[in-house]
Amino acid sequence: MDMSLRIIGRVESSVKSRADAPKMEDEGAPQAVVRIDPAYREALLGMEPGKEAVLLTWLHQSDRSYLQVHPRGDKTREKRGVFATRSPDRPNPIGLHRVRLLAVDDGPEPSITVDRLEALDGTPVIDIKAIGRTYRSDEER
Amino acid sequence: MDMSLRIIGRVESSVKSRADAPKMEDEGAPQAVVRIDPAYREALLGMEPGKEAVLLTWLHQSDRSYLQVHPRGDKTREKRGVFATRSPDRPNPIGLHRVRLLAVDDGPEPSITVDRLEALDGTPVIDIKAIGRTYRSDEER
Repeated sequence: MDMSLRIIGRVESSVKSRADAPKMEDEGAPQAVVRIDPAYREALLGMEPGKEAVLLTWLHQSDRSYLQVHPRGDKTREKRGVFATRSPDRPNPIGLHRVRLLAVDDGPEPSITVDRLEALDGTPVIDIKAIGRTYRSDEER
Repeated sequence: MDMSLRIIGRVESSVKSRADAPKMEDEGAPQAVVRIDPAYREALLGMEPGKEAVLLTWLHQSDRSYLQVHPRGDKTREKRGVFATRSPDRPNPIGLHRVRLLAVDDGPEPSITVDRLEALDGTPVIDIKAIGRTYRSDEER
């Protein structure tokens, strides 16, 4: 079974290092652009500004060997298993980012612009998913 | 950059084939068990029954070559890009499943039991994440 991820795009962001990165997207993450690999251009059909989506990224600066961490890096707090946290250090460092689409360009240099993204400049993007029912806020159901 | 996913567990479910699988988790997905690879046992520390989590799975029966699909397999609907859908057929067939933990066993044969899961028996599990702020319902914020 081939479980190698394919990079479908890359984050372009003002967040340049892990020290700068907000820990949660409501702590000041900036607007960002995802440059989509033209090979995946057709997969953007039907994406529209204003809609919400979940971006999946590969947190390439993470350490995959960690099984336990201090929550939010705070050493005064007891260690927890990484599966009980959102730490980027974990066996498969996949980032989940709920975003709103501000622009979608499916031309020859495809890209999407999103309202806020807590991912470093250069982070590989591995998937974009329409918001499923369970992720919608109550008024959308 | 090593972007090969590691299997951290496997789904044990009564859903045995893709034809049986509900398309959305509110369409009758059953309770399921995830058998965790003992190598990742320590990563369960702090997970507790009652809490919500997001499971990430590798949808191993998917076709990674699809860029466009008929929404929900309905051929009367116009094709859309896979990134505008939740189709399992996509370049990186990662499933996102919001679940509630019913039981957590971090003993020598570790497992978690979840309330409902629209994934086939045998599906590889690649990550478990605590629910982040953006996925909580309003009353929890």
